[in-house]
Amino acid sequence: MMNDSSPLAVGVLGATGYTGRELLKKLSRHSRVRIAFATSESEAGAPLRRLVRNAPDLALQKAETAPLGEAAVVFSCLPHGDSSRWVERVLAAGTAAIDLSADLRVQGPETPEWAREAVYGLPELHREKIRSARLIANPGCYPTAAILSIAPLARRGLLADAPVIINAASGVTGAGRTPKRELLFAEVAEDFRAYGVGNTHRHLAEMVDQVGKVSTGAVPELIFTPHLLPVRQGILETIHITLRKPLSREEATAIYREDYGNEPFVEVLAEGTPTLTSVVGTNYVSIAAVPVERVSTPMLQVIAAEDNLIKGAIGQAIQNLNIMQGWPETEGLL
Amino acid sequence: MMNDSSPLAVGVLGATGYTGRELLKKLSRHSRVRIAFATSESEAGAPLRRLVRNAPDLALQKAETAPLGEAAVVFSCLPHGDSSRWVERVLAAGTAAIDLSADLRVQGPETPEWAREAVYGLPELHREKIRSARLIANPGCYPTAAILSIAPLARRGLLADAPVIINAASGVTGAGRTPKRELLFAEVAEDFRAYGVGNTHRHLAEMVDQVGKVSTGAVPELIFTPHLLPVRQGILETIHITLRKPLSREEATAIYREDYGNEPFVEVLAEGTPTLTSVVGTNYVSIAAVPVERVSTPMLQVIAAEDNLIKGAIGQAIQNLNIMQGWPETEGLL
Amino acid sequence: MMNDSSPLAVGVLGATGYTGRELLKKLSRHSRVRIAFATSESEAGAPLRRLVRNAPDLALQKAETAPLGEAAVVFSCLPHGDSSRWVERVLAAGTAAIDLSADLRVQGPETPEWAREAVYGLPELHREKIRSARLIANPGCYPTAAILSIAPLARRGLLADAPVIINAASGVTGAGRTPKRELLFAEVAEDFRAYGVGNTHRHLAEMVDQVGKVSTGAVPELIFTPHLLPVRQGILETIHITLRKPLSREEATAIYREDYGNEPFVEVLAEGTPTLTSVVGTNYVSIAAVPVERVSTPMLQVIAAEDNLIKGAIGQAIQNLNIMQGWPETEGLL
Amino acid sequence: MMNDSSPLAVGVLGATGYTGRELLKKLSRHSRVRIAFATSESEAGAPLRRLVRNAPDLALQKAETAPLGEAAVVFSCLPHGDSSRWVERVLAAGTAAIDLSADLRVQGPETPEWAREAVYGLPELHREKIRSARLIANPGCYPTAAILSIAPLARRGLLADAPVIINAASGVTGAGRTPKRELLFAEVAEDFRAYGVGNTHRHLAEMVDQVGKVSTGAVPELIFTPHLLPVRQGILETIHITLRKPLSREEATAIYREDYGNEPFVEVLAEGTPTLTSVVGTNYVSIAAVPVERVSTPMLQVIAAEDNLIKGAIGQAIQNLNIMQGWPETEGLL
Repeated sequence: MMNDSSPLAVGVLGATGYTGRELLKKLSRHSRVRIAFATSESEAGAPLRRLVRNAPDLALQKAETAPLGEAAVVFSCLPHGDSSRWVERVLAAGTAAIDLSADLRVQGPETPEWAREAVYGLPELHREKIRSARLIANPGCYPTAAILSIAPLARRGLLADAPVIINAASGVTGAGRTPKRELLFAEVAEDFRAYGVGNTHRHLAEMVDQVGKVSTGAVPELIFTPHLLPVRQGILETIHITLRKPLSREEATAIYREDYGNEPFVEVLAEGTPTLTSVVGTNYVSIAAVPVERVSTPMLQVIAAEDNLIKGAIGQAIQNLNIMQGWPETEGLL
Repeated sequence: MMNDSSPLAVGVLGATGYTGRELLKKLSRHSRVRIAFATSESEAGAPLRRLVRNAPDLALQKAETAPLGEAAVVFSCLPHGDSSRWVERVLAAGTAAIDLSADLRVQGPETPEWAREAVYGLPELHREKIRSARLIANPGCYPTAAILSIAPLARRGLLADAPVIINAASGVTGAGRTPKRELLFAEVAEDFRAYGVGNTHRHLAEMVDQVGKVSTGAVPELIFTPHLLPVRQGILETIHITLRKPLSREEATAIYREDYGNEPFVEVLAEGTPTLTSVVGTNYVSIAAVPVERVSTPMLQVIAAEDNLIKGAIGQAIQNLNIMQGWPETEGLL
Repeated sequence: MMNDSSPLAVGVLGATGYTGRELLKKLSRHSRVRIAFATSESEAGAPLRRLVRNAPDLALQKAETAPLGEAAVVFSCLPHGDSSRWVERVLAAGTAAIDLSADLRVQGPETPEWAREAVYGLPELHREKIRSARLIANPGCYPTAAILSIAPLARRGLLADAPVIINAASGVTGAGRTPKRELLFAEVAEDFRAYGVGNTHRHLAEMVDQVGKVSTGAVPELIFTPHLLPVRQGILETIHITLRKPLSREEATAIYREDYGNEPFVEVLAEGTPTLTSVVGTNYVSIAAVPVERVSTPMLQVIAAEDNLIKGAIGQAIQNLNIMQGWPETEGLL
Repeated sequence: MMNDSSPLAVGVLGATGYTGRELLKKLSRHSRVRIAFATSESEAGAPLRRLVRNAPDLALQKAETAPLGEAAVVFSCLPHGDSSRWVERVLAAGTAAIDLSADLRVQGPETPEWAREAVYGLPELHREKIRSARLIANPGCYPTAAILSIAPLARRGLLADAPVIINAASGVTGAGRTPKRELLFAEVAEDFRAYGVGNTHRHLAEMVDQVGKVSTGAVPELIFTPHLLPVRQGILETIHITLRKPLSREEATAIYREDYGNEPFVEVLAEGTPTLTSVVGTNYVSIAAVPVERVSTPMLQVIAAEDNLIKGAIGQAIQNLNIMQGWPETEGLL
């Protein structure tokens, strides 16, 4: 499965969480990369193969000891807050960085100088910039599906002046691997709960920022309410959008396919709607746009599903790597 | 646990589905009733105790052979469509009926004469009529939580002219016990899916009808989207309501408590939000109303939870029985 | 539901774990007791009603401040190790104690003087002693089902000289509510694993001790292997027993029914085998004994199921309380 | 990922069950095969891509119309009973067959002439015969793990004269995709149950037959008890084996590694024990052998885990295909 040139050295910071481990799995099977190092503060010294069966014969090491400069690209799966200071060191070592944390996704006045070059790594919106990027802010799991669901309509100025209402539900791997009582099996099984109620979830800013960038006409207000599902992986979003004019399912599907028809990892359904299991384990976002009956205002219901760990995190990160390197975009992802 | 008077004879039509069995359980523990008969077409002849450990020593019988006239009240857990023709026979036998199917919940021009007396059995809205009713149309599981969530605002004319958006998720017992591929464990586990997409679910009419009846001012449009959860029991609804004027959490809570403060089975949370497991196994609806931040229109998010089989079905049916008989409303339900 | 005399004051030490909370629920509904206090180190000050909807209007308090002497009986749901020193203080205050921890279940040379009076609270084996006990060592969840499954054969000297092999599987509430990574939903869901492999589980001693006490003839060796199930509640044990002579299902069932026919909470199945959901939520142990075909040695397979939190913990504790007080044994447990 | 020669044409009979669909997935990614046809009686006419995203652009067809002779190898995922008559037609068409049903796994006097050439497709035992086979009887899911767990000891004459006790638990995909009430989510979730109780499961014969073939000394008796787990995929077996002499964990591990050290898909653990999630999604069987403490007879506890759909079915089938074709054995399986 090797190609002729020697494989690209990559490093992984924070390899023992759910995203880190899943990333190691995919990188271990990617024909054009070799894992140069992987870090873990809590499990330093343990062999990578304890995490991932076919990983290279390396031991996990503390981030402090990682040879950042020996990798061509470093992925950071470190926690929000912690990640950016490591990404800064990666760049300082002359190495490109793909940051899976939320730290650099929204630029603001307080964004430090070195981080200004960060490109928001949603290929469907920013592929050209990603190609030449040295620093990728990899999108959040919830924002990936939401932005892709809203962008085609926002771009065409089709949104009416009413809040877009995003109800989302995610599997528990989205909440990380740190032991917390509310994430115990006995608490989550047979349960379902909303969080970030009242439009207070931190992912909102990222959605608003990106939707704003593609909107023609007024920037829409968004209301985002995540829920915790008793499943391991996957996100389903049910989005209500008020339109400036009615769209039939065929018309709506045509619009989405115009934007995503050539996208390797966006699937637009002309009939039926996506479910979690239709995408879990893959890098696909699957989208259906259905007109709302029995209301006097024209509205669409957009249902979107993705794997929170893959398209919502590490699959998209590898997609970004492939684009940055000029490789086939699906390499290691099918 | 017996009271002095002899217990009331009740019958159950359709006792082997999820609602039927749960109803038998609760009736077996209810100190003021005795089960006179229970029917099942597929399991006729089997002892009730195979279904419910402490049931009376009776055998299931076919509906055709049930002594409808010997019960004072008959509960029908028969499927939609099938139920009303049996309820008609129950009434003809001089027996009161509590119909758990959807057949008689919404009255229309095609409602037959005999069914016109049906009272919609939501005690929080229609307690007085229930007291003297001979025929109860027991509310649907989704409508119970939705109507109770919207009514206090609709009644006060607080709803703005924008659709109320009801996202709901239910455990699989709501879909019944008939074997269908899409309800197999291997299809439902680790999945989450929307259905009735595009505002096409049959429960909508019931919600619109009841909300319309309590509304002052314009009757609101409703958009209702149910989802199937990988859990056995419980419903959670996340409802977005646009208001004519802003309400703080305190104000919203005060309004709901004004309406429900004396209700034995409605709980209004001043902080936090309900989850499935906070209500499963009980007859409670638990409601929280939270203002939506970061939007320019005043909006509330109402989160409501209930057990679909209990408050959403058989618990409410028993609550109705208690009211009809003038018994303590919580009898057999705590 | 009250009886004439005033209710008995009881206390609960360690009320916020899974057993503590379940105990509060059942005690709140028990017609002959009133909860005098309930303790929690981590949630002291919080109202009991936050844990249990119909609990009395009390606040949780630290154990140090609990009026041990004001209760007639105190239940300890404290962790193993911690429990016995509190139980000692309860007795010193002149109050009877039911200890749900493992601390006092097996007596040995190191058992302190004050603890020697502890009665192993398995009513089916020790009802008479329980009646007059002041200190109950409430049985472990796994041992309850195992001992009840083996005792009727051991008592009759029917066990051959070969180890009894106990494979058991439990829901996660058996592992407690302290956050640990291996108990996270994302780790337990879709998984199944053995633990205590190699016959090293701490519950073994308790089983060996009790089975030894009822055995006529040689005391059998036991091999016990627990497994963790992705469910919340319930234990199923599949036990292989080599016999001194063959028993048909009818004969085996007759033996078990001879011992348990009058037991209010042991169910012996003449056909079929118990499953988790046939007992979860109840205080029943359900047992089936089936001869093993296609082997040359006479063997029985005994399948037993119970709710680990109820018959395996707090239900049995209340059963013990009822016996100690001379109340109907099923009070508060049906 | 293509190799130089043109890909091998393969066919799939019965493509819409859980095994069929999983087989299509793996074959679609296998670099040396192309799917020539796939059959389904119930979904004939539907595109393969509705089942499997990256499948070739073909429609499902009825078995009757499948060009059996155009494939070099045909996999049959048809139900037991139905499968063998189709396999007979495949062979008659001059095509090799891999039969995933139980029909041909145990040869007996009633085995028809044409089926006598069937090779039991467990590579770890019969690799040489598989190499030149034209007809493979692909092993059952439970037998695969059981036989691999017992064979190293049986082969060395280490088994004492006492039954080997195999307790096994499987996810529900092992029970197929036909709608049955007992497989509904609401019946399986939060449940755990034994079946084939009393050593009556049909898979037993297959285990006895294969273990008998490798045994030196007396053929051991086996007791096999499967259980149904509330998970989608995976099998865990906990096996108790009485030995003729004690073995330490190191000694036992060395024996298993002697047999399986070069096997690409058998993993022998020197510490810890396998769990479902450590193998689900892979073609590995993971085995740990642990001595049993606190018994006077030398015994081993062998814990083995595999994915019932992969190593227990379609992964092993592809492994057999790879061996038959002289391809790298792991092709399409890592």
